[in-house]
Amino acid sequence: MKIKYELKHKEKNTNARYGILNTNRGSFETPMFMPVGTQATVKLLNPEELKAVNSAVILANTYHLWLRPGEDVIEAAGGLHKFMNYDGPILTDSGGFQVFSLADSRQIKEEGVHFKSHIDGSALFLTPEMSINIQQKLGADIAMSFDECPAYPSTYEYMKDSVERTLRWAKRGLDVHTREDQSLFGIVQGGEYEDLRKHSAIETVKMNFDGYSIGGTSVGEDKVTMYKMIDYSTPYLPSDKPRYLMGVGDPLDILEGVERGVDMFDCVLPTRIARHGNAFTRIGKINLRNAKYKMDFTPLEDECDCYACKNFTRAYIRHLLIANEGLGGRLLSIHNIRFLTKLTEDIRESIKNDSFLEFKKSFIDKYKRK
Amino acid sequence: MKIKYELKHKEKNTNARYGILNTNRGSFETPMFMPVGTQATVKLLNPEELKAVNSAVILANTYHLWLRPGEDVIEAAGGLHKFMNYDGPILTDSGGFQVFSLADSRQIKEEGVHFKSHIDGSALFLTPEMSINIQQKLGADIAMSFDECPAYPSTYEYMKDSVERTLRWAKRGLDVHTREDQSLFGIVQGGEYEDLRKHSAIETVKMNFDGYSIGGTSVGEDKVTMYKMIDYSTPYLPSDKPRYLMGVGDPLDILEGVERGVDMFDCVLPTRIARHGNAFTRIGKINLRNAKYKMDFTPLEDECDCYACKNFTRAYIRHLLIANEGLGGRLLSIHNIRFLTKLTEDIRESIKNDSFLEFKKSFIDKYKRK
Repeated sequence: MKIKYELKHKEKNTNARYGILNTNRGSFETPMFMPVGTQATVKLLNPEELKAVNSAVILANTYHLWLRPGEDVIEAAGGLHKFMNYDGPILTDSGGFQVFSLADSRQIKEEGVHFKSHIDGSALFLTPEMSINIQQKLGADIAMSFDECPAYPSTYEYMKDSVERTLRWAKRGLDVHTREDQSLFGIVQGGEYEDLRKHSAIETVKMNFDGYSIGGTSVGEDKVTMYKMIDYSTPYLPSDKPRYLMGVGDPLDILEGVERGVDMFDCVLPTRIARHGNAFTRIGKINLRNAKYKMDFTPLEDECDCYACKNFTRAYIRHLLIANEGLGGRLLSIHNIRFLTKLTEDIRESIKNDSFLEFKKSFIDKYKRK
Repeated sequence: MKIKYELKHKEKNTNARYGILNTNRGSFETPMFMPVGTQATVKLLNPEELKAVNSAVILANTYHLWLRPGEDVIEAAGGLHKFMNYDGPILTDSGGFQVFSLADSRQIKEEGVHFKSHIDGSALFLTPEMSINIQQKLGADIAMSFDECPAYPSTYEYMKDSVERTLRWAKRGLDVHTREDQSLFGIVQGGEYEDLRKHSAIETVKMNFDGYSIGGTSVGEDKVTMYKMIDYSTPYLPSDKPRYLMGVGDPLDILEGVERGVDMFDCVLPTRIARHGNAFTRIGKINLRNAKYKMDFTPLEDECDCYACKNFTRAYIRHLLIANEGLGGRLLSIHNIRFLTKLTEDIRESIKNDSFLEFKKSFIDKYKRK
């Protein structure tokens, strides 16, 4: 079965939507934040910890899994869910973003992309058909079209060609996608150009994907431009399909995305900042390595219900970080993911109550972006 | 209350003992293996995972905690148990072993030891009184006397002087130890010299500690010599007090120690080898990085009841290790500690049945030391 999105409530004052994403592995509310398990593991956490922080869909990266351990290993294991022992829904990206952000010496051809492995420099070639076929072997619940993710800024001329190529690649991927138990999302590109976003969205929607994502964000653009990219895309996306803003997980960006009608977000941010000693709190990020937490025997956040906050103090977590102990990053990862899933819970309540803008304002009034 | 050891059954054919260690935090069977939480954390694991592998007492290292975060921080937190949120019994070593194995430029004086921090090279000085006072602030259930742990081999003359100094240091520590809810163990030294071990044991026992440990092992001596060090010490230790062999956790060494009447073992081995990709199995250690496990969708050990074995395959753990994902070391640590606690469970059964030697032989027949 394909996923099915049910729009339950459209917020009165904004484009924010409350909905249900029905999958073969349960039904989950949107807007939702999806933690990233790049290499078939959300760094340091086990599946039970992901469930405990109320994660629903999690992400895995096709590019990384194609290189290591290889899609054939995961297929032989019975698919990604069995391989990593996660029975919730999984989404795989197409590899397109990693090819453009990690790989060296890439050459884009109509057929596909030549590039070098970021691990050993070996020459590789990836096509839309290969990306879809790898994703079918991985067996996630949701697969993504293989797209070109151009740098920011790109010229209008370059972006125009790129959008057309991504549309052709989307069609080629769709043609080889046959798994009935896997949904396939199309990706809207077009950079910061309004007409290209519109064209990309309309033409992608014509292909009738199971959901749509807004790509080409988090590639170096400023916040105002990122929000414009969303504004230029969502009006052309159907209301009965989920909308996914790729690679975005900053709390303020989630709020802006939700306001513009986005349902799904993913980002490495909560686990990445955790490994650097940072915790999300309602007043902004704090760095637990700071000496002022040495004798601070309070939780990361008083009102937080996560495992880290219920069991450990800032002083202990600071000690773990200073002493380079892995439990420190593990506890912060749990807390940071919970912070974002809790944020989406609060957002959903505010949408249901038609009070999203009040919620957004009260959140932003406290939260300092650093 | 001090700990209380009850000898429940002496094995018919050997010196192996089955007993109960009663502590303020529960009663636990011996022989037991104690995982090491050097810096107030058993690397990568949380307290619930330690309980799940049937850990009883865990270790923490006074030297490390003195340097980071400092005993005052832990005292202010309400003691080590609260600081690390572990409600089972904890044992702290004296710092003696770390001063002799990690620190630079040490100079041993009658008053104490001058040395340099392994972290920042700063000049430090540690005395028996300081070690005990730090341990009283840490507040573990069991503290250890501050001893000199001489290198192997040391000359007879050096060892003779060292044993006398360690006896004087033991007395000085005992004199400042006042915590009624904390037990204090004496340490038998004497290297490989039979008469010095005897002298050290007899004189240490005269001071009436709550338990006795055999020190000066795992300092580079061969196995035959290590077993002799135990043989030379245990005959002079009282049967109504626990005996602890410090720093020993190789499965075959645990068997040899138990046969000689040892009740408690600790070692970083299970977590250290885990971080290098190794797993204990009944046929010996295996390295999961080996290519032959790439498509091996069986657990680390079929009959193991640990979380890692019940939920994940060798192929997945190999992938995590190759991809440098922390969950790999975490799963292997869980398995390796469980392997040793299960070994002690099996040992205890064999002692109760007076079949320890049969059990030992059947274990050794399968297990290949590498």
